[in-house]
Amino acid sequence: MKLKNNFFFTLREDSKDEDSLSGNLLVRAGYIKKTASGIYTYLPLGFRAVKNIERIVCEEMDAKGALQLTMPSLLPIDVYESSGRREIFGKNMFSLKDRYEREYALGPTHEEMFATIAKDSIKSYKDMPICLYQVATKYRDETRPRYGLIRVREFVMKDSYSFDKDLEGLDTAYSKMFNAYKRIFDRCHLNYKIVKADTGAMGGLLSEEFQAITDIGEDILVLCDSCDYASNIEVTPTLPANKSEISKKSSKYELFSTPNVGSIKEFTKEYGFDTDHIVKTLICKSDDNFYACIVKGDRELNLTKVAKLLKVSEVTLAESKDVEKITNAKVGFAGPINLDIPIIVDEEVFYMEDFVVGANKSDYHYKNVNINDFKFTDDSIKNADIKHVNEGDTCPTCGGKLHFKKGIEVGNTFKLGTKYSESLGLYYSDQSNNQIPVVMGCYGIGIGRVLAALVEQSSDEFGLNLPVNIAPYKVSIVVININDEKQMEYANDLYNKLHSFGIDVLLDDRDERPGIKFKDMDLIGIPLRITVGKKINENIVEYKLRSSNENIDVNCEEIINKIQTFLLR
Amino acid sequence: MKLKNNFFFTLREDSKDEDSLSGNLLVRAGYIKKTASGIYTYLPLGFRAVKNIERIVCEEMDAKGALQLTMPSLLPIDVYESSGRREIFGKNMFSLKDRYEREYALGPTHEEMFATIAKDSIKSYKDMPICLYQVATKYRDETRPRYGLIRVREFVMKDSYSFDKDLEGLDTAYSKMFNAYKRIFDRCHLNYKIVKADTGAMGGLLSEEFQAITDIGEDILVLCDSCDYASNIEVTPTLPANKSEISKKSSKYELFSTPNVGSIKEFTKEYGFDTDHIVKTLICKSDDNFYACIVKGDRELNLTKVAKLLKVSEVTLAESKDVEKITNAKVGFAGPINLDIPIIVDEEVFYMEDFVVGANKSDYHYKNVNINDFKFTDDSIKNADIKHVNEGDTCPTCGGKLHFKKGIEVGNTFKLGTKYSESLGLYYSDQSNNQIPVVMGCYGIGIGRVLAALVEQSSDEFGLNLPVNIAPYKVSIVVININDEKQMEYANDLYNKLHSFGIDVLLDDRDERPGIKFKDMDLIGIPLRITVGKKINENIVEYKLRSSNENIDVNCEEIINKIQTFLLR
Repeated sequence: MKLKNNFFFTLREDSKDEDSLSGNLLVRAGYIKKTASGIYTYLPLGFRAVKNIERIVCEEMDAKGALQLTMPSLLPIDVYESSGRREIFGKNMFSLKDRYEREYALGPTHEEMFATIAKDSIKSYKDMPICLYQVATKYRDETRPRYGLIRVREFVMKDSYSFDKDLEGLDTAYSKMFNAYKRIFDRCHLNYKIVKADTGAMGGLLSEEFQAITDIGEDILVLCDSCDYASNIEVTPTLPANKSEISKKSSKYELFSTPNVGSIKEFTKEYGFDTDHIVKTLICKSDDNFYACIVKGDRELNLTKVAKLLKVSEVTLAESKDVEKITNAKVGFAGPINLDIPIIVDEEVFYMEDFVVGANKSDYHYKNVNINDFKFTDDSIKNADIKHVNEGDTCPTCGGKLHFKKGIEVGNTFKLGTKYSESLGLYYSDQSNNQIPVVMGCYGIGIGRVLAALVEQSSDEFGLNLPVNIAPYKVSIVVININDEKQMEYANDLYNKLHSFGIDVLLDDRDERPGIKFKDMDLIGIPLRITVGKKINENIVEYKLRSSNENIDVNCEEIINKIQTFLLR
Repeated sequence: MKLKNNFFFTLREDSKDEDSLSGNLLVRAGYIKKTASGIYTYLPLGFRAVKNIERIVCEEMDAKGALQLTMPSLLPIDVYESSGRREIFGKNMFSLKDRYEREYALGPTHEEMFATIAKDSIKSYKDMPICLYQVATKYRDETRPRYGLIRVREFVMKDSYSFDKDLEGLDTAYSKMFNAYKRIFDRCHLNYKIVKADTGAMGGLLSEEFQAITDIGEDILVLCDSCDYASNIEVTPTLPANKSEISKKSSKYELFSTPNVGSIKEFTKEYGFDTDHIVKTLICKSDDNFYACIVKGDRELNLTKVAKLLKVSEVTLAESKDVEKITNAKVGFAGPINLDIPIIVDEEVFYMEDFVVGANKSDYHYKNVNINDFKFTDDSIKNADIKHVNEGDTCPTCGGKLHFKKGIEVGNTFKLGTKYSESLGLYYSDQSNNQIPVVMGCYGIGIGRVLAALVEQSSDEFGLNLPVNIAPYKVSIVVININDEKQMEYANDLYNKLHSFGIDVLLDDRDERPGIKFKDMDLIGIPLRITVGKKINENIVEYKLRSSNENIDVNCEEIINKIQTFLLR
């Protein structure tokens, strides 16, 4: 690509519309442009970068024998009704009606469709294993799109689906895909961790996530200092309190005034209790049911664990108005004494004594409370694990210490089992002619997220610095003086040669100052820059890597060889 | 791809759901599967075929220096409001609201978006010419989706857009794209004609269509027996009647009874008038305005010409209830005498004398009518060209005879001018710093339609027979007896070798009778079949082209060479 008179622009200023490093840099470098909240155009540079990622993904899928196809995005709503996911996705699913009032979803994910398609081919146990995939656009009406390409509403995803006759087959298919994923993210030069995760809206038997480690990640990853343990905080178990016996103490609790108190930290400061003697009560909601979840003062409630415990798809914190109605008090004063909804008590609390809880009365708490003072309704749950781990907690595998990292989920792998095959009628005949549901797995990679994660991980103060195989162009040729015939002639000649070798090369022949050209090439992250200036009269050009400050004089006779050597590293 | 235990199926029976040769064959061959009316999945074979078409398209676009990007499909509705096309598309545009009640269109075409994106790069006359393109999914809520992939609601289109500072620049850009299109369709081995066409909803200065010649085509193409003239019937001018003078005759017309009369043909038969003495009156509607369009008895009314004449985007035939209200009669008895709406009279009628027209009275016509008997309101239009040409009419270019062909529009090219740049604010500064609207062109290719057209043109009674460079796999290896170790070993060996040479090869190692395998390979249209059977003991395999009946014995030592020679033809 020659830049003169062409579609090329960069922005000097930070984007006011972006709340992440990667979003801002990708917009400034002219890789992407926001069309609406969570909806982006991939401009030519961004398009080439994601195509490079997509190519790696497809090569690794093909290498595992997965067959590529493409599903439409406009899908009859009833497939999501059959699987029960219309309700699970709820407002996250875009839907619309056509001119005849028939309703369609914009596919948020395609498990149902793939299970349906597979019915044409799978009749008997002999027709498996098979693995299908697509690289296709997905739509999700996120509550709060953010972080550039990380949390978007229209995005390209590679999704593959495996179909096997039994769990053993699924294990084989799963590990094939798992290994393909490792190769893909390795080839993308991504710094990532594989963690156990919640199966969420997908359902199924097992979920693992490929998490790119970045500061901006929306997920908290729990890693061990001493072993390989890695887990999404959502599902990381906390070890039972290292105490011998559950408290049996029973004493008279007392009401005391606690006005103007906000956080637990403020509470401890103001009233002199340490967190070993404070218990938090959080009112939660699932569908139309409310629960009071009770954890130790220095713990965070884990809503995913609560949902799992209750066997529901989602649990949220109740809204203020509901909390006020249930507790007869302002928010912040809920407590387990004389509350009329079921309580769910974290096991850690059972080892605590003489603690503080909310009094269900505005500006009041009780002190000297013990577990036997709680009102356990019939639906209440004792002794559960409903808290997040804290940094410094003990590793559930090796006994080491846990610490946290932030991660962007770039890929996930699910052992689905028979959830979709049963609900959509995907059965096969076994050797005795019994009808058996097909065992499915599904495997996703967010292509745009991989780009965003790479940008988060590799950029510097000058701009993007993508791996060579992902960068949209590998080499830039910057002409210092475009009015110097010799410089232009050599630059054009080099451009044509590199182009003819199949090397993605940019020629910066714009009528701009050299400083601007250098800055632009750094901002858009071209791995190798060749500068053609005055020294061309001595048959010399400058060679500079994006990742180094060194500017090296190279003889023109050696330059092609040197470029090829760099690219083949 | 090896077929055993893999995702592969064909259908013996014709699809009841398909109303075209190509739709039926593509479904039967497992290339596509219908998901909903006008919405299809591309199964692995179909996916590979369209990717082959897409590759050719992208190569030719890149060769012209067009830069590829991707726009989203979910677009804020206001861009279509700015251009006035929300109304023009009307119900043909899918739209939906997000969780915050903001409205979006599913992009039916992207002129508005490209004009918007170009604003970032185009500031001055120096920033052009540029050409951008994408290969992206479009959505149109067609009234009547039909003919398999030909008239669909979700489809992949290559759309490119050129941006120039003046009409001269547009001419250059247009002819570049025009030539690229010729190369693309030539490389696809498509039998096509380029015809002048209506600019329709797109607007602009010029439109040409690339029409694949097929029996099922929805467009009628007008071609000349003697010269290169080619035109969509919608815009083909009819030559003025070859008569010296307009009729000035005036005589007393008479009412006569004409019950139970349907077509013009029936009318001539029943009452003995020839078509030189019959005049048809058709009530048409544009927005809320009605017009009576009047043509000679053997002519078809051309609604596109009427719309052009009235300078409106669309004219349709009025509904029965409106016709009845306007004429005070059943449908079929409209006429230009004493009608209270504007009449539009084709010039041919002005040379006719003593003819029959409807009497605006059920079961009655007038005879011995002359042009001077018509009631011309103020808004009426005399002497217009509002008729379709007939086969046998005179060529407007050379005086030869015209004939018709049917065509599928696979590509179109538009000189848009400044319609979108003006409505969306895409201006540049010229050398004197004046703000000038950018001159745009747009160019589309329906990727799926190219596949459908090729199938319509090339299939035979055995199934698909796509050109080698479009076929999903080039070579099939059919093993006669999969239990014969020697056959399987050789077949696998040949498969691996061809695969390693980068040849797309299928190995039919299914446990099926040879006849079924041969039929399947013919149905899916693999250009070259190698059969490995008993003769492998004599080091011989069979070589058969899809397009020939000849089965040739070839020595194994020569087979690879022979395959490569065929593929390099």
